[in-house]
Amino acid sequence: MSHPSAELAEFTAQLSYDDIPAPVLRRTEDLMLDYLVSALAGSSARAVQSIAQFADAMGPTSGPCENLVTRRSTSPLFAAMVNAASAHMVEQDDVHNGSVFHPAAVVFPPAIAVAQALGRSGKELLVASVAGYEAGIRIGEFLGRSHYKIFHTTGTAGALAAAVAVGRLLNLNNEQMLHALGSAGTQAAGLWEFLRDAADSKQLHTAKAAANGLTAAYLAHDGFTGARQILEGPQGMAAGMSSDANPAKLTDGLGTRWTVLETSFKFHASCRHTHPAADALQQVLQSHKLSANDIASVVAHVHQGAIDVLGPVVKPASVHQSKFSMGTVLGLIALHGRAGLPEFDTALNDQATADFRERVSMDLDTEVDAAYPAQWIGKVTVQTFDGRTLSGRVDEPKGDPGNTLSRPELEDKAQRLGTYRNAASTDEVQAIIQKVWHQADAERVGHFLG
Amino acid sequence: MSHPSAELAEFTAQLSYDDIPAPVLRRTEDLMLDYLVSALAGSSARAVQSIAQFADAMGPTSGPCENLVTRRSTSPLFAAMVNAASAHMVEQDDVHNGSVFHPAAVVFPPAIAVAQALGRSGKELLVASVAGYEAGIRIGEFLGRSHYKIFHTTGTAGALAAAVAVGRLLNLNNEQMLHALGSAGTQAAGLWEFLRDAADSKQLHTAKAAANGLTAAYLAHDGFTGARQILEGPQGMAAGMSSDANPAKLTDGLGTRWTVLETSFKFHASCRHTHPAADALQQVLQSHKLSANDIASVVAHVHQGAIDVLGPVVKPASVHQSKFSMGTVLGLIALHGRAGLPEFDTALNDQATADFRERVSMDLDTEVDAAYPAQWIGKVTVQTFDGRTLSGRVDEPKGDPGNTLSRPELEDKAQRLGTYRNAASTDEVQAIIQKVWHQADAERVGHFLG
Repeated sequence: MSHPSAELAEFTAQLSYDDIPAPVLRRTEDLMLDYLVSALAGSSARAVQSIAQFADAMGPTSGPCENLVTRRSTSPLFAAMVNAASAHMVEQDDVHNGSVFHPAAVVFPPAIAVAQALGRSGKELLVASVAGYEAGIRIGEFLGRSHYKIFHTTGTAGALAAAVAVGRLLNLNNEQMLHALGSAGTQAAGLWEFLRDAADSKQLHTAKAAANGLTAAYLAHDGFTGARQILEGPQGMAAGMSSDANPAKLTDGLGTRWTVLETSFKFHASCRHTHPAADALQQVLQSHKLSANDIASVVAHVHQGAIDVLGPVVKPASVHQSKFSMGTVLGLIALHGRAGLPEFDTALNDQATADFRERVSMDLDTEVDAAYPAQWIGKVTVQTFDGRTLSGRVDEPKGDPGNTLSRPELEDKAQRLGTYRNAASTDEVQAIIQKVWHQADAERVGHFLG
Repeated sequence: MSHPSAELAEFTAQLSYDDIPAPVLRRTEDLMLDYLVSALAGSSARAVQSIAQFADAMGPTSGPCENLVTRRSTSPLFAAMVNAASAHMVEQDDVHNGSVFHPAAVVFPPAIAVAQALGRSGKELLVASVAGYEAGIRIGEFLGRSHYKIFHTTGTAGALAAAVAVGRLLNLNNEQMLHALGSAGTQAAGLWEFLRDAADSKQLHTAKAAANGLTAAYLAHDGFTGARQILEGPQGMAAGMSSDANPAKLTDGLGTRWTVLETSFKFHASCRHTHPAADALQQVLQSHKLSANDIASVVAHVHQGAIDVLGPVVKPASVHQSKFSMGTVLGLIALHGRAGLPEFDTALNDQATADFRERVSMDLDTEVDAAYPAQWIGKVTVQTFDGRTLSGRVDEPKGDPGNTLSRPELEDKAQRLGTYRNAASTDEVQAIIQKVWHQADAERVGHFLG
């Protein structure tokens, strides 16, 4: 009775620490740190606070798990929900290019919460996290580009990734893991429509993917059954939500290809679709020693997915929406040389940024589109006021696997994110860094703050 | 800025008790009773118990709301989740034909839980319930037949119906109600794939629709925003999950057409798609005084939706799946004259039922299919062993608006369901009946058991 969903369930249920190459484990620690400080950076945001308040009203007032937003303890469900809501808030968490999926925000919150609740070791947490990544990324690739046109893959595939990570910590057997996939897939949701209104749904998507996946795994552990082919069946996810799904992607290179290693860190604090053009523009600015005032126009040559996601954002109405505005992102690069969290905080009502935004347009590029999503090429054409036409190009944006961040660079990013809006102190972030770098030695996964 | 989603939000946010005709209110009470005893009847089922255990593990150990499954108190979220899981379990809850949507299971659990938590009156609960029905049914009609081929409309549209009912109890304004729809719609999920495996997902769908809709409404009350056109927008529900959506359905007859009055009670304890043929077979059996042993074959002439939902069930593997087996349902009618809960409990391993099942087939019928879903016509052709070919036909199955159940019939059904597997005592069910019939006089919505 083997089929792609079953093979994926078996692989993740059977994965052991010794199966996983050391570089994959080290990169998983890198990604875990990147997640923890992303969750801290988002913790003060209104949308995250709303979800945290809801959790306080509906959940228990204490429990074994750490809520990074409120710094109070709670049950696994609500720790997963609230921390996942926060992790994606400032758009600094990781991304896997091929699946256009943000794994950290939906894998680590439920995995860490359940590891804390069950007293699992750091090694067990690492295995569960790798399992969640390997499943979620392949499911995102399976669902394809047609899915991503309407659905937020991090919300949909995210529920299954969360189920697998939690399922691993619950020691689900092959059969139970398949049921966990079934129950997660039938809860999978998340539509891009909110982008048009700068609405808060993105936080709800990660929160619910984490919570729903956790629910699916706990139910499977208790004997609750799900569809055996929720992904590829005739009334499953692909049938309902994709027109170009490819079942071969579900099992592609299981055990030999490690998608953890393919996952990118975000350097700019914006939607990943803006990064290739931002790096290409930075290259032009540096090569030709230009400033924002020299530039009459920028054309970003992009893939269709960038147009789908960024196109609706004409005049950003919130700081969050401005991270989906190509004009704003390129404006910050031109004006400040970087597009980090503090730059976005001041950009929304800044006239110079708005003026630059008007000079930016996007254009579908055949080469860029054909390479996407395996490769995210950045190409810009810059017209200067003095009449020059200049081109910039990067084949791999900063943070991508071939251009990744070193541990010192990750620690620097961790300090910037973790202390953003005083979410945590420098010492607290330093302690988190050390806990993550020594996670494989932890007998029990503890709390990361205090 | 008026559009169908906004009109629907405004109607439900502004609906008041005096706007609602008395027959609509009385029918809402009928449906509330039907829900409460359906939830009791399902309470001992394994799948429901799994969800109840999960709620116990993740939620608070007490609260203002009544959990009908555990008989303990909890927070609104978990009362809504567990009671909704139970309400649809025995397939005896209501259905709206035109939308192929089961409103009670997703509207009453969150509405009653929140009314209990906030100390709302019986009249406020009735208004909220009507608002939930009127929204959910129109959204189901809007999503159309293409949606129902893959998606369980009670799960998807159900999240929005729950959001509206809870939103009304939270006194959301027009704008907040629109955001509640947006946050509910972006969580909407539920795939039919589980039917192929007799898996437990149906209970998860109603549980999560109720819980997710409640979440959306509470978040909207706190200022959390959602997409303004989650239903009809270019990256909204219809864009992602339907190919025949009709936005005019969203506002059809708001304030004059009351879909509560169009909602059917279920007479047989099986999937509604089996009921028209069951009634038509019963007619043939009675008219010609036939018994099961006289019958060589039955062809049920059905609409496509029946084939989509029932077709995958060839040999039922569970009591629940047998309720989706046309052959089993017609077998029970032929063998016992009824297809109620006790008949299904003994049918699964019964040889006579299995033998009859083999003699039943479904055939797509042009007339039946064209009338569906506005009308659910039942047509069967019966071949007898003595060589006769007999036809049966019903234009409106028992429980439909034109062939509805009287209050004495509803009370009788309530006693049968409420006491099923000793969920409640006869006296307890009698007390529930009286509380529901006097709900409009209740200053505060209390608990229904004890």
